[in-house]
Amino acid sequence: MNRWWNNMSRGFLLVLSGPSGAGKGTVCDALLKKNKGVVSSVSATTRKKRPGEVDGENYFFVSEEKFQEMIDNGEMLEYAHVHENMYGTPKKFAMDKVEEGEIVILEIDVQGALQIKKVYSDAIFIFLLPPNMDELKKRIVGRATETEHSIEIRYKNAFRELDFVEEYDYFVVNDTVEQAVKDVESIIEAEKHRVKRFKYIKEKVIGE
Amino acid sequence: MNRWWNNMSRGFLLVLSGPSGAGKGTVCDALLKKNKGVVSSVSATTRKKRPGEVDGENYFFVSEEKFQEMIDNGEMLEYAHVHENMYGTPKKFAMDKVEEGEIVILEIDVQGALQIKKVYSDAIFIFLLPPNMDELKKRIVGRATETEHSIEIRYKNAFRELDFVEEYDYFVVNDTVEQAVKDVESIIEAEKHRVKRFKYIKEKVIGE
Repeated sequence: MNRWWNNMSRGFLLVLSGPSGAGKGTVCDALLKKNKGVVSSVSATTRKKRPGEVDGENYFFVSEEKFQEMIDNGEMLEYAHVHENMYGTPKKFAMDKVEEGEIVILEIDVQGALQIKKVYSDAIFIFLLPPNMDELKKRIVGRATETEHSIEIRYKNAFRELDFVEEYDYFVVNDTVEQAVKDVESIIEAEKHRVKRFKYIKEKVIGE
Repeated sequence: MNRWWNNMSRGFLLVLSGPSGAGKGTVCDALLKKNKGVVSSVSATTRKKRPGEVDGENYFFVSEEKFQEMIDNGEMLEYAHVHENMYGTPKKFAMDKVEEGEIVILEIDVQGALQIKKVYSDAIFIFLLPPNMDELKKRIVGRATETEHSIEIRYKNAFRELDFVEEYDYFVVNDTVEQAVKDVESIIEAEKHRVKRFKYIKEKVIGE
């Protein structure tokens, strides 16, 4: 039997966002590992390629001029300065995958997600939350790389960013990574059953 | 820890609909059996109570006058004549459960679902589909109670009703009952993570 319902006419962009310390990276990695139908978005950056990194896989490595050109041409879903470098999400890579029926996941901070919402509201927006603020602080402190000053800044930013949860479609509490991944998987499964992601449903049922 | 995210501020009404032969009853029963957080809506009817039936459980048994009064007062989410009797979905019963944070499932034909959509678009609408028309015919024929004439009518109606899938939020193909139930469960899980179903998310995270 032709199981047409297992293949969307069009995929979607899943924006997994939230404050630092919520555990976006961990949840995203675990999700990608478990789900073959989900692919990762690839960012563009102006920073230098490090040993072992592959262009088009880890990042699209581009010059500052090229990056600016992409912004000017509206080719970025979002972008930001981080220290001396630019990072952004090229629209074309993600949209091509979506058109092929794939689910493209984009792990990104709150500022980036809000930028995307303005230019591409068709994406699914998930806000990843810590169960409470103590746990959030613990996770930020747990990163050996942070100074006391940067911990304070991250914590304050996280507190402020929680206001934006109302802008998102869904929220998931990262109490345990396992449960958070399951919750995101349920959201993905549900979204795969959206009528709007399929063309010609009746025609498919009646076999035309 | 206070796992606030396991309790919605407000539940929702889940309308499980589709043509006859799609298997609404079977999927709905299996779903209710497996999921304690999901409750069934109770219809009102003017038909006589049969032995063993309980008022307020199987149906709300009401007089024709009372039924008409409920329609006139806008107390019905939908209603229909079936032979000499009236059947309808009283709004109050379902809405009270929703306000208590429960998920209320309503198994209903396409005409009824479309009526509900007009007066209560906050509900979640799922269209249950047969995998193909041969299977649908088999299922309709499989009901010993049907005459050849009524089989023909049901099949034609089903064919026509497939047009309305576009009006629904989600579709689920009832290829196997087990998978269909899983799909509906994913939709329920996802909808439980809707930001709009929770009040004061930030306040809950920061513990206020």
